[in-house]
Amino acid sequence: MSRLNLNSNLLITSNPFSYKNRGQELEYLINKSNIYYYQNNIALIDKRPTPIKVVNYNYEINKITNAFFEKKSTTDYYGIYKGRYLDFEAKSTEIKTSFPLKNIKPHQIEYLKLILKHQGIAFFIIMFSKINEVYFLSLENFNNFINKYPNKKSIPLSFFKENGIEIKGNVSCPIDYLKALNF
Amino acid sequence: MSRLNLNSNLLITSNPFSYKNRGQELEYLINKSNIYYYQNNIALIDKRPTPIKVVNYNYEINKITNAFFEKKSTTDYYGIYKGRYLDFEAKSTEIKTSFPLKNIKPHQIEYLKLILKHQGIAFFIIMFSKINEVYFLSLENFNNFINKYPNKKSIPLSFFKENGIEIKGNVSCPIDYLKALNF
Repeated sequence: MSRLNLNSNLLITSNPFSYKNRGQELEYLINKSNIYYYQNNIALIDKRPTPIKVVNYNYEINKITNAFFEKKSTTDYYGIYKGRYLDFEAKSTEIKTSFPLKNIKPHQIEYLKLILKHQGIAFFIIMFSKINEVYFLSLENFNNFINKYPNKKSIPLSFFKENGIEIKGNVSCPIDYLKALNF
Repeated sequence: MSRLNLNSNLLITSNPFSYKNRGQELEYLINKSNIYYYQNNIALIDKRPTPIKVVNYNYEINKITNAFFEKKSTTDYYGIYKGRYLDFEAKSTEIKTSFPLKNIKPHQIEYLKLILKHQGIAFFIIMFSKINEVYFLSLENFNNFINKYPNKKSIPLSFFKENGIEIKGNVSCPIDYLKALNF
């Protein structure tokens, strides 16, 4: 099929903060995988743009001259796969043996719970960047951990190995996370 | 359930152009219906923010000082209903007997076709504002019209009456468009 001109808000969104985020590599790899899914008619997954609040628009020069990034976004990605709605948050950590829970905001968990309630597919993609391992963790398994260990401040890597699914990939689809969904 | 603090990008998005658009009333009515769907756990439908391209960010004052609205958006709304992904474009016309096709951009049709290809639900909500009638028209029926009458510049109201579904509502859910989906 022909390449549609949807890049601006469908696949790779420019982010002036990219180079400040340690999640930048993960974002790049997921976006590349999403392009692969799109070009091969597998799924249509979009990165949510960071919400911007426009304070002033100058009609004479047709430009926004005052705006700011709103703090509260929901999750990083959403889209359609085989008719189903899916939504996930992707995070990267440099810690080798556990994932610090402070990386996930409570309103993001609430939002994913809402997706689950509406029978959508809600999950996390967690990258352990120092050991080059990436895991798919369903919201259900994430919640199981939180409920079982309400006082823990991080999820150990061993929990991901036992309850998550390690995501592999290749050059064209470096994080082939849809393989973790078996339907 | 408690009201989540998701308003900023989930339900009502502020748009500095609202008062210039004749679609403003339709947007208000659909957003109100989406709040109803959200509050009653029926569906989670989001208005896509207009894509903004940030040109300059001033780190000293933490503000965007130069940006512009990108022309190419995809469609107005997307979301989840009973696990399914849905996507639609909403348009209003003041013409009483037909809907001018120039209101729908080719890239929007291409995008909705892509949603359909991925087994999502793709449709239009068309408001005839002068006669206070609102119609649900599936992408399939829209395409049928385009293919049958490739040279027509508008879809007559009679086509909506025969092939679409008139959408009714009430004060709390003024455009109850999910009723048109029977699954």
